[in-house]
Amino acid sequence: MRSTDPGRVGRPHVVIIGAGFGGINAARRLRDADVSVTVIDRGTSHLFQPLLYQCATGALSEGSISTPIRHLLRRQRNAEVYCAEATGIDPVARTVTVTRMDSSVAEVGYDYLVVAAGMRTSYHGNEHLMDHAIGMKTLDDALAIRRKIFAAFEVAETLSDPEARKPWLTFAVAGGGPTGVELAGQIRELATLALEREFRSIDPAEARVLLFHGADRVLPSFSETLSARARETLDAIGVETHLGVHVTDVTAEAVQTTDKATGTVTTYPARTTLWTTGVEAVPFAGALATALGVDQARGGTIPVGDDLSVDGHPEIFVVGDMSSHRGLPGVAEVAMQGGRHAGAVIAGLVAGGADRPGFRYRDLGSAAYIARRHALLEAGRVRLSGRMGWLAWGAIHIAFLAGVRNRAGTVLVWATSLMTDTRRERAITYGDPQTARKSF
Amino acid sequence: MRSTDPGRVGRPHVVIIGAGFGGINAARRLRDADVSVTVIDRGTSHLFQPLLYQCATGALSEGSISTPIRHLLRRQRNAEVYCAEATGIDPVARTVTVTRMDSSVAEVGYDYLVVAAGMRTSYHGNEHLMDHAIGMKTLDDALAIRRKIFAAFEVAETLSDPEARKPWLTFAVAGGGPTGVELAGQIRELATLALEREFRSIDPAEARVLLFHGADRVLPSFSETLSARARETLDAIGVETHLGVHVTDVTAEAVQTTDKATGTVTTYPARTTLWTTGVEAVPFAGALATALGVDQARGGTIPVGDDLSVDGHPEIFVVGDMSSHRGLPGVAEVAMQGGRHAGAVIAGLVAGGADRPGFRYRDLGSAAYIARRHALLEAGRVRLSGRMGWLAWGAIHIAFLAGVRNRAGTVLVWATSLMTDTRRERAITYGDPQTARKSF
Repeated sequence: MRSTDPGRVGRPHVVIIGAGFGGINAARRLRDADVSVTVIDRGTSHLFQPLLYQCATGALSEGSISTPIRHLLRRQRNAEVYCAEATGIDPVARTVTVTRMDSSVAEVGYDYLVVAAGMRTSYHGNEHLMDHAIGMKTLDDALAIRRKIFAAFEVAETLSDPEARKPWLTFAVAGGGPTGVELAGQIRELATLALEREFRSIDPAEARVLLFHGADRVLPSFSETLSARARETLDAIGVETHLGVHVTDVTAEAVQTTDKATGTVTTYPARTTLWTTGVEAVPFAGALATALGVDQARGGTIPVGDDLSVDGHPEIFVVGDMSSHRGLPGVAEVAMQGGRHAGAVIAGLVAGGADRPGFRYRDLGSAAYIARRHALLEAGRVRLSGRMGWLAWGAIHIAFLAGVRNRAGTVLVWATSLMTDTRRERAITYGDPQTARKSF
Repeated sequence: MRSTDPGRVGRPHVVIIGAGFGGINAARRLRDADVSVTVIDRGTSHLFQPLLYQCATGALSEGSISTPIRHLLRRQRNAEVYCAEATGIDPVARTVTVTRMDSSVAEVGYDYLVVAAGMRTSYHGNEHLMDHAIGMKTLDDALAIRRKIFAAFEVAETLSDPEARKPWLTFAVAGGGPTGVELAGQIRELATLALEREFRSIDPAEARVLLFHGADRVLPSFSETLSARARETLDAIGVETHLGVHVTDVTAEAVQTTDKATGTVTTYPARTTLWTTGVEAVPFAGALATALGVDQARGGTIPVGDDLSVDGHPEIFVVGDMSSHRGLPGVAEVAMQGGRHAGAVIAGLVAGGADRPGFRYRDLGSAAYIARRHALLEAGRVRLSGRMGWLAWGAIHIAFLAGVRNRAGTVLVWATSLMTDTRRERAITYGDPQTARKSF
């Protein structure tokens, strides 16, 4: 089908693959353009990924950090949402092949295509990692981490041998970027605050959190000063940071690291390992590269020109993490601005212009949450840490959440949590009733 | 082990199996008794089951209707929580066999035992039902129903053939008790309110909701007048109620019913079937009955004497749904009062008394939510329906939720939902990242 919607006939059809920050912003930028927009996503929700770690550690619910894509776009009359996974592309016929939720296959025609399908966790082909180290990209990852963390404390509580408890109370986090630092900090925080007084045999505060990072400082995307402040806070709350080491193997019972400089291999008994290091473009990037005859860049990303279109295909744009553009970082703001840029270029062309302006990323700064009353904010010459950074972090995240509606509820939950040291969303679920029945 | 906790030595050990309404209330009643209490549960959460249907239909999060058991009991210093599944009992040695979350097995000794392990969904041995009809007893059931309902609308939206859409937009609910009526009403409500304006190809309000019930009126536990009012409301919001029929088979694509009077078999194409009819005692009831040499009553329940103890075993009490006591209904209030009664009897015996008072259930009435601004309340001679019933229903549920803490958040969510017609918790999850990856 090129156009199934009668109202669409005659108007250029813009297909957007992916409803993350890039895709949603491309769609919104086209709101007033004389086009019909179809947003294709394999899931039904737009995920506010910067707060995923709060869902994983029991602070926020799934609905607090995600919004149905079609709810976000409900008032944009020229946009429709198509829930399916894009699996292939025919750039000559200008069609995308998709698999629907019921496994049936369909073709969707396009005049312009914006690919914003993002990245997924990469285990570099290591099956041990895939089986035993949980990634941090999706809501299902977050629920799996939640289940693993809270179940570990429960098992430890029932064991009378202190030695047998230790691996259950040891949490390894691979990767010292924002996601790894945030997870490590949150696990210590829940062990020392939320779980305090709830256990009788174990002291949750004894939980060890090991943070492994290959570089020589955590949060390398921040300045050295702020990175050092983050390290101080991590030390103060009891996260054990190991720098210059890679996690090289994981089993159900232990994590193995290798020192980059000396090659020394160390094994730590740990029942929970979280994997925040390593992402790769989702499989559609490979299909796209093959069909267009371009070489994938680092991590499977697609090289794009100045206007974010693919060389030789002025009708195809790639934005966000999947786009390889002058080494811009894989953060939400780059995807948002890239999506808006692609939308603007298309809107201009549809309106009859010939101009294809180049994408200029405007760095608005970055923020990272370390622990309660400790966050980093770096924007140009402004560098905040500690309590000031934390207040700024809160203000920014609340402002951004506005775009996805759940602001009031989230503020209430955060305020309650701060005042009472509790975490509301600690339910352990398995997703499938039969798995749940068998799992226990 | 009889007593692992040094502080417990010498004090009678009360083991409570199950942390539902019965178990939690038994534990709380023993707060000031000179005993040590161990609450054993296979999960980590106390579930506020009366609102499970709101989690299933995207109105409330898991954390809004459940609370960690150990959080509920954190201030009760004589109580500990043991997360494990009770699988067997030795009434002579007075030990319960449990399987921990890591699959290891342990023995827990008791002086008094309160069994409050509840019921699970029964499919009467029909494998088709088990595979294709989702029950409504656990958080995992609720998340499975949520996934199924919202995915059905998504699939329908991508199909261009109106005939092919129909089974996806048909939702069958087996059972016209409170759970079935609430689910049926909520599905119509979300189709006509929350999903309005979000779809482009389908009209969600066309969703058919079929409610099948074996008796000759819905909500048979209420008076005929209120039952008739409920039926009127169901008709008004568009639920198609079929009385005097049983659901006799379910496949992935259809539901089959049999008329009780005529034997007529009817097949309705429907991609979603929910199963709210039929419960059976959890497997531990069978182990208990065998070990104690008693015959299980209807649905696998355990017959108990006037004081809720098992004949010949004055140290073992069975309360809540699993207890067969003068045909009391399987509702939260019976379990709560039964749990408190068992706790009171044990507290009296431990304090040196010999009295074993009989259990007197005080019927506080019952309530059922039908639709927005329509609920039933029946308490003695007070019978409310429509808007008055709905206000009373809200007040009662908010008051009860207080016991499990999430009151303020829930009130905010309900208020927001009423004002904006939205449902915040619509995220589709699979529980397991690898399943999610494969599923789509």
